[in-house]
Amino acid sequence: MSEFLKLIPIQQALQILLSQMQVTIIPERIATLNALGRVTAQLIHSPIPLPPFPRSTVDGYVVRAADTFGASESLPAYLRVNGEILMGGTPGFDINPGETGLIHTGGMLPESGNAVVMIEYTQPVSGDTVEILRSVAVGENIIHIGEDVQIGEEVIHSGVRIRPAEIGGLAALGILEIEVAKKPIIGIISSGDEVIPPEGKLLPGQVRDINSYTLSVLIDQVGAIPKRYGVFPDQADVLEVNSAHALDECDVLVITAGSSASVRDLTARVINQLGSPGVLVHGVSIKPGKPTILAVCNNKVVIGLPGNPVSALVIAGMFLVPVIETLLGLSNVGTRPKLYARLTTNIASQAGREDWVAARLYSNQEGYQVDPIFSKSNLIFSLVRANSMVRVPADATGLSAGELVEVNLLT
Amino acid sequence: MSEFLKLIPIQQALQILLSQMQVTIIPERIATLNALGRVTAQLIHSPIPLPPFPRSTVDGYVVRAADTFGASESLPAYLRVNGEILMGGTPGFDINPGETGLIHTGGMLPESGNAVVMIEYTQPVSGDTVEILRSVAVGENIIHIGEDVQIGEEVIHSGVRIRPAEIGGLAALGILEIEVAKKPIIGIISSGDEVIPPEGKLLPGQVRDINSYTLSVLIDQVGAIPKRYGVFPDQADVLEVNSAHALDECDVLVITAGSSASVRDLTARVINQLGSPGVLVHGVSIKPGKPTILAVCNNKVVIGLPGNPVSALVIAGMFLVPVIETLLGLSNVGTRPKLYARLTTNIASQAGREDWVAARLYSNQEGYQVDPIFSKSNLIFSLVRANSMVRVPADATGLSAGELVEVNLLT
Repeated sequence: MSEFLKLIPIQQALQILLSQMQVTIIPERIATLNALGRVTAQLIHSPIPLPPFPRSTVDGYVVRAADTFGASESLPAYLRVNGEILMGGTPGFDINPGETGLIHTGGMLPESGNAVVMIEYTQPVSGDTVEILRSVAVGENIIHIGEDVQIGEEVIHSGVRIRPAEIGGLAALGILEIEVAKKPIIGIISSGDEVIPPEGKLLPGQVRDINSYTLSVLIDQVGAIPKRYGVFPDQADVLEVNSAHALDECDVLVITAGSSASVRDLTARVINQLGSPGVLVHGVSIKPGKPTILAVCNNKVVIGLPGNPVSALVIAGMFLVPVIETLLGLSNVGTRPKLYARLTTNIASQAGREDWVAARLYSNQEGYQVDPIFSKSNLIFSLVRANSMVRVPADATGLSAGELVEVNLLT
Repeated sequence: MSEFLKLIPIQQALQILLSQMQVTIIPERIATLNALGRVTAQLIHSPIPLPPFPRSTVDGYVVRAADTFGASESLPAYLRVNGEILMGGTPGFDINPGETGLIHTGGMLPESGNAVVMIEYTQPVSGDTVEILRSVAVGENIIHIGEDVQIGEEVIHSGVRIRPAEIGGLAALGILEIEVAKKPIIGIISSGDEVIPPEGKLLPGQVRDINSYTLSVLIDQVGAIPKRYGVFPDQADVLEVNSAHALDECDVLVITAGSSASVRDLTARVINQLGSPGVLVHGVSIKPGKPTILAVCNNKVVIGLPGNPVSALVIAGMFLVPVIETLLGLSNVGTRPKLYARLTTNIASQAGREDWVAARLYSNQEGYQVDPIFSKSNLIFSLVRANSMVRVPADATGLSAGELVEVNLLT
């Protein structure tokens, strides 16, 4: 347990790891429609202005604004109606002084039209004349060419996670394919003499491998490809051969250890055999998850996670997720939304160590409330019963009921 | 525009729609490993207790607690070491009075062992004797059989969205397949004489269809299958034939209208032709999105969305998402996490109408701050620039800079 003598704070541990990472983003071209959740690997410029022509924002009459100056209900302006501007085409006429035309929301403005009067403030009087009951300023009820986006403008930067909004913006520009970062492949090895694959039949003393399942779906959620290598016994030679093989095929390797201390040291020794510089951090001042191992072996990240499934999932969220985000070139690595909620029950903690406690967040008329779920040894179903985790900062010796505390959502 | 005379508040409009829905959940059996984001269609009982055997939570010596009573550094208890309990198997021995055994974290307790002394509080003295330097209570450092989950316990209810935690829990129980709600199919029809498909070449007066792209990925995100039918001109007969065909093939139909008022009325007329009861709500007191149409035609939901892409996306989030969640049988329909942030700039608004304003949320040393992004007519790139939306409640005439306001994240 000698490696545990110096526990490193979370942020510092993460910085040590990220600073040793070598990142090469491999772009791949995919259909915009399939890009949800992917990360852009190119700076996207707009090939056209948006809107591509001046548009009306209302249903009404397009005018030269000067023709409406002074118009009111008691003293309307009378304009000659040239016709109707049909949707989807160019106006068939221009607007000379004293003239107007019927236009619909989104319709294209004639060249000399510089404002639109809403239909509510007009009154047809004869076949080709309309009363204008209110004056409009130049530009009123109009969107100009390029008002949303100008031609050549940088519309989406590199390193952006694509949401429905970006897909809409790209569709508007007619950009049907984009370059995104290729998904890195994350290998998962489970170890433990007591661990069997989930599909196996339990004998006394055995437990099922939870981590390769939870980590797989977490990795998928973040935008990488999980590759499960199975469960191996706690034997240095077996673990070394299989880890080396997996690291060869993957961009990152995650090894979840068995639960005893000797076995955790075994994981560190195995990782150090995989390449240099090897183990960078062994032991982080966090609960759960203290026996975390962070390493870089021949330019690839290797993470040794605690075998406890809750610890493994918490620590993966803290270290593996930012590593994947970094490999994807994401510009805002490691940011996730946090809420503040009123704690309902005291949480005890030890100063100098950051604690994460599974919790149930709910809202009532007084705002967000959070109930900690106390569970011995972080059993997996405590996480199933939880929807969030409460953070107890490293400098606190606990949190008191009634305090406003930081909560991260479990999704 | 007669239908607009009575605008209905959002919550009331949603209730009207949901109360008229007929929901039949069709279960399908899938692999647990593929179930992320799916919604359970069965109540899951645990086939085994978890843990399946009593386990040590520490590395140490398993004892009969009574043998340690009164033990201290100055007056240790001496126990005979029977052997080591290997991981993954049954203990090869029991613990008689005065006896102990080495055990690892997660190891199986011998029948008569009822507590574990942490290795830090022990000291080997000869080949088969160990000093116990601290007393332990019965049950200390032990997890009992079924302490996480008891056999037959209801572990996951029906209507639960599967997260990594649930997948882990199912793996622990050896449940490799579960029944989830079949994904409903959501048809998308775009209309508008000015609208062309995103892959088309723009002529003057034309704009690209954004909504079928943004709605497709939103639908996918929520857990349904989008089916795009393309862009149709604003002609009642064309829209009727194609809408009827689409409604036949899908579980829900979404029609996004062109932008002019006459065309919005056309959508309502077309929807009323699709079946009874037809249009339930035409006009919601919200900005953007006032001309929303909510309908049920022959037991299927039909939603008429405004053509403006920002309006369409906001309204889809407000009405289409809860409809899909209801069809999936989700137990907590329509709940999404909201944050509270300090508003940096005044937002003007009209009382009696709920406003949603695109915004940029960020945090600094004073907590969350939110900058509204003001954009004429809700242009699509205002949403690309945003990461959130600020809610202006219906009873407010605006929000003031410095106020703590409700913010929904755009994801």
